[in-house]
Amino acid sequence: MNDLALTPTPAVIDALRREAARAPESGIVEAMNYGRDRPGLIPLWAGEGDLATPAFICEAATRALAAGETFYTWQRGIPPLREALARYHTTLYGRPFTPEEFYVTGSGMQAIQIVIAMLAGSGDEVLIPTPTWPNAAAATGIIGARPVEVPMSFGNDGWSLDFDRLSAAVTARTRALFVVTPSNPTGWTASREDLVALLALARRHGLWIIADETYARFWYGAGPRAPSFYDVMEPQDRVLFVNTFSKNWAMTGWRVGWIAANPALGQVIENLIQYSTSGVAQFMQRAAVTAIERGESFVTHLIGRARRGRDICCDILAKTGRCRFVPPQGAFYLFFAVDGETDTRRLVMRLIDEANAGLAPGTAFGAGGERFVRVCFARNSEQLEAAMSRVAMVLTQNG
Amino acid sequence: MNDLALTPTPAVIDALRREAARAPESGIVEAMNYGRDRPGLIPLWAGEGDLATPAFICEAATRALAAGETFYTWQRGIPPLREALARYHTTLYGRPFTPEEFYVTGSGMQAIQIVIAMLAGSGDEVLIPTPTWPNAAAATGIIGARPVEVPMSFGNDGWSLDFDRLSAAVTARTRALFVVTPSNPTGWTASREDLVALLALARRHGLWIIADETYARFWYGAGPRAPSFYDVMEPQDRVLFVNTFSKNWAMTGWRVGWIAANPALGQVIENLIQYSTSGVAQFMQRAAVTAIERGESFVTHLIGRARRGRDICCDILAKTGRCRFVPPQGAFYLFFAVDGETDTRRLVMRLIDEANAGLAPGTAFGAGGERFVRVCFARNSEQLEAAMSRVAMVLTQNG
Repeated sequence: MNDLALTPTPAVIDALRREAARAPESGIVEAMNYGRDRPGLIPLWAGEGDLATPAFICEAATRALAAGETFYTWQRGIPPLREALARYHTTLYGRPFTPEEFYVTGSGMQAIQIVIAMLAGSGDEVLIPTPTWPNAAAATGIIGARPVEVPMSFGNDGWSLDFDRLSAAVTARTRALFVVTPSNPTGWTASREDLVALLALARRHGLWIIADETYARFWYGAGPRAPSFYDVMEPQDRVLFVNTFSKNWAMTGWRVGWIAANPALGQVIENLIQYSTSGVAQFMQRAAVTAIERGESFVTHLIGRARRGRDICCDILAKTGRCRFVPPQGAFYLFFAVDGETDTRRLVMRLIDEANAGLAPGTAFGAGGERFVRVCFARNSEQLEAAMSRVAMVLTQNG
Repeated sequence: MNDLALTPTPAVIDALRREAARAPESGIVEAMNYGRDRPGLIPLWAGEGDLATPAFICEAATRALAAGETFYTWQRGIPPLREALARYHTTLYGRPFTPEEFYVTGSGMQAIQIVIAMLAGSGDEVLIPTPTWPNAAAATGIIGARPVEVPMSFGNDGWSLDFDRLSAAVTARTRALFVVTPSNPTGWTASREDLVALLALARRHGLWIIADETYARFWYGAGPRAPSFYDVMEPQDRVLFVNTFSKNWAMTGWRVGWIAANPALGQVIENLIQYSTSGVAQFMQRAAVTAIERGESFVTHLIGRARRGRDICCDILAKTGRCRFVPPQGAFYLFFAVDGETDTRRLVMRLIDEANAGLAPGTAFGAGGERFVRVCFARNSEQLEAAMSRVAMVLTQNG
């Protein structure tokens, strides 16, 4: 046996940089690790569906591997992928984009890490409306900046931004505003008016906006996608977009994403890629090109499935009489509170034990989300019905 | 056309965080971008060979892809890969290792980025003997800490550490000492005595050692591998190892590496993985398992090839009468100075233009390397002879 394994030495943690030692454990991963190997457990905790990546996408990677595309490649991404991203955006947003605006990253998470490192360091602040996916705040803390959570309001009409509270949170050290729309976990989606107001706030205070529009296509309102900062911004506005192949194309495990930015920032972004992961495997990028070029009917299929999943979850939870939520406008999560349940971390563990269903505790999503629980509904109807019925049964038994 | 592309706005760079905007452009990538698409150019600039990843490794990824291993997975790496890494180290270092000591990262570079973030932030200092691969210093700067270059000495016996200079560089803010052995680019390799002395220095000042032993197997001295910190350290010593699948198994383009660390640091490392790339694709990790389990004869082949490449480069450059170097003890680079050539950045561009050979300028490797040029000799003999003969011809024509 190895001495190191037998004698963990917490003193060694004290010898680390404080910001690293204090980086929070993900409340989502904690639940996943608790329930990962339970037989029959239906996992609705992570932000991923039940479909593996389509074969036509995997096969593009396989072909590139067989062709020997295993060498270092362009730090910014291979030209065909940057071109495909430009075409994709041109179609989706109805105006021209150029390849020079796109930078391939090793996940949407890495896009966030890089963009935060571009904007904020020691002593700086980043405003983050919450509840939200916790990783942006954690990445902000690790670089040495301070994430400032600004709780959204929850009322009968669902979640909404509190602009007074946002304005009041701006200080001389505020560098950026991190906006996830449609939101993970709440499903709140910024209206065009919200976007205009956020942009005005950013302009007024000289802030950058980091726009995470990962879920733009998972949108249950009118039109083919959610409203976007692209709809309201001017070219000189300080907006950086982060995105991922994970959700639209069922590629969560691949770790491929992108940054969209003013091309004047290209060399800076290239440098930050160089000094973090030095780029993304070429054979992965070939798969991403194929996803964009041949994946539209699959994306449409996924969105339709998520819409059905949303209805199933809403219907079943509504019948418990204990759950508070409004049907989400976008993304693929239902974020609900359970009357009388205050410790959602414990509730989630209990639902793993008693309902054999994996959910994520609201405590993982920052201020204002503590009393809620997140369920991911990007899944087949049968499993969703089974899992949510079991959850409903546990909730009503304990009611 | 897109307005953004037509009107680059340098003002937008001034609006960035200073540490990000100032991250240096890689001098290696600059040369690569200058010569990337030249017909017939023989590329010896990057730290990679000419062999694609062996088919048996690629096929493991292909099988995993076809089996649907495209979902999120363990942040620390899949258990079979951590077990394979433990077995690999047990064999190579002749003492037991456990899977809990290993953490899979999205490249050796990411291992470095994470380990630096664990140790040093704003106001802290990291000592880095130079010349060395520039990326650790750049990652140190991006997190907000200060890389402190400590030049090694170059004499008739080759490169050596200057321990007086190293000791003198330690301040109250010094947190870590970054040691690459065998060294990229110099080929210098720490002797057991060097390692003992470095460890003593670290213990005396309460510093961490970051040990980059990526090239341990590419070793031209006695024994199967270069001396290692594993040979001299105690379990409680503060040493973090960074490594990669890139070199041993010709997997440069894959971006898979690992950290070896005290298991007490496991949760911190998991968190830093979560908030940067959130793990490595499972199908890539399957390939890495196969590389370890079935790759030994391939590694041996690569090392033999590098040894021949080293001899070829040394022989040809020695004959020019203008080149100063000692044959490297380890790694797969020859780092040589050319009498009378002071601007190696320009020299490298000229060698691209006139010799159609891609080398890396010493200016890319920090203090003490400015007058040198790096050539990677992990390549087939025929191409190495052709490229180096052309380089020698240009150097003697201009001599």
